[in-house]
Amino acid sequence: MRILGVDPGLTRCGLGVIDTGPSRTVGLVSVSVATSEAGDEVSHRLAAISDAIEHALDEFRPDALALERVFSQHNVRTVMGTAQVSGVVMLAAERRGIPVALYTPSEVKAAVTGSGRAAKAQVAEMVRRLLGQDVPASPADAADALAIAICHAWRGGGGSGAVSGSGAAPGAVVTPAQRAWAEAERAARRRT
Amino acid sequence: MRILGVDPGLTRCGLGVIDTGPSRTVGLVSVSVATSEAGDEVSHRLAAISDAIEHALDEFRPDALALERVFSQHNVRTVMGTAQVSGVVMLAAERRGIPVALYTPSEVKAAVTGSGRAAKAQVAEMVRRLLGQDVPASPADAADALAIAICHAWRGGGGSGAVSGSGAAPGAVVTPAQRAWAEAERAARRRT
Repeated sequence: MRILGVDPGLTRCGLGVIDTGPSRTVGLVSVSVATSEAGDEVSHRLAAISDAIEHALDEFRPDALALERVFSQHNVRTVMGTAQVSGVVMLAAERRGIPVALYTPSEVKAAVTGSGRAAKAQVAEMVRRLLGQDVPASPADAADALAIAICHAWRGGGGSGAVSGSGAAPGAVVTPAQRAWAEAERAARRRT
Repeated sequence: MRILGVDPGLTRCGLGVIDTGPSRTVGLVSVSVATSEAGDEVSHRLAAISDAIEHALDEFRPDALALERVFSQHNVRTVMGTAQVSGVVMLAAERRGIPVALYTPSEVKAAVTGSGRAAKAQVAEMVRRLLGQDVPASPADAADALAIAICHAWRGGGGSGAVSGSGAAPGAVVTPAQRAWAEAERAARRRT
């Protein structure tokens, strides 16, 4: 199963594509960051980001799109732009019949690190290890997009080793390390 | 000049089309409310609203699209949906090369009623009078969309009687009533 993870943003929008394999394995297909000019009109900026999303959907043909759910706790201006981007991202997937899954930041952190309160650097480091990269994806938006895709692979039903939203699928967990992962994930889900 | 005013919303999205005439006159072309089912997935809902916007853009071919600027002061969940809708609305206009103008709720109220703190019913009543309707447009989203379009006609440079954002164009104000309007608008702008 191929998943496009999107960390939505108007200035920088992370796009991470992974393939899921057997036994909870995940492989890197592509990672990039779409950008738009801060001085441009919002409608131009949304079109620039939408172009990049549509290009990624057409080039990589993912089976699912996973997107970070937007909250309005932070800077109001930034959040509005992020929500607008998430709107055009969802629309682009819907137009192509690609299912969209939404995850909160703490769900993504818990899936990848075992803790819903993990630091950004820790998330990036775990993404690096899980995908067998030499160095973490950079900037943070790129690593976050990959983390969102991995979260969907494990929680949303991606691939044979997928963990459903309501609990782990024990038969798919084959190594002690992978069993520990699943347990950490469940524990984090209870805490968050 | 033809203007499509949009009151963005995921459950109800108001769409009002007006034509501007000489001497600050405005005429009703069309008013409708696009809806989506509250129980559906957000991506489906965004596509339903986007379909309606695209249909209106293609049917009425407006010269400009005016949109209410979204704030996050209200219910967080509602605001996120509203911001996502505003994203797909701006994208649809941008894809067709139609300029987008954004106005705050108080700018719209001030343009139509002379007061940035006018009640919704007062806005609807003024829209009814200005467009020569027998009864106010209903629901409120429809009247609001028309008010946003009228705001752009007078403040954003629509038609020969347009008032720019920085002040009235005195030569275009021809009757005492219209002069009173322009003055009320300027006064409201100073207060809000």
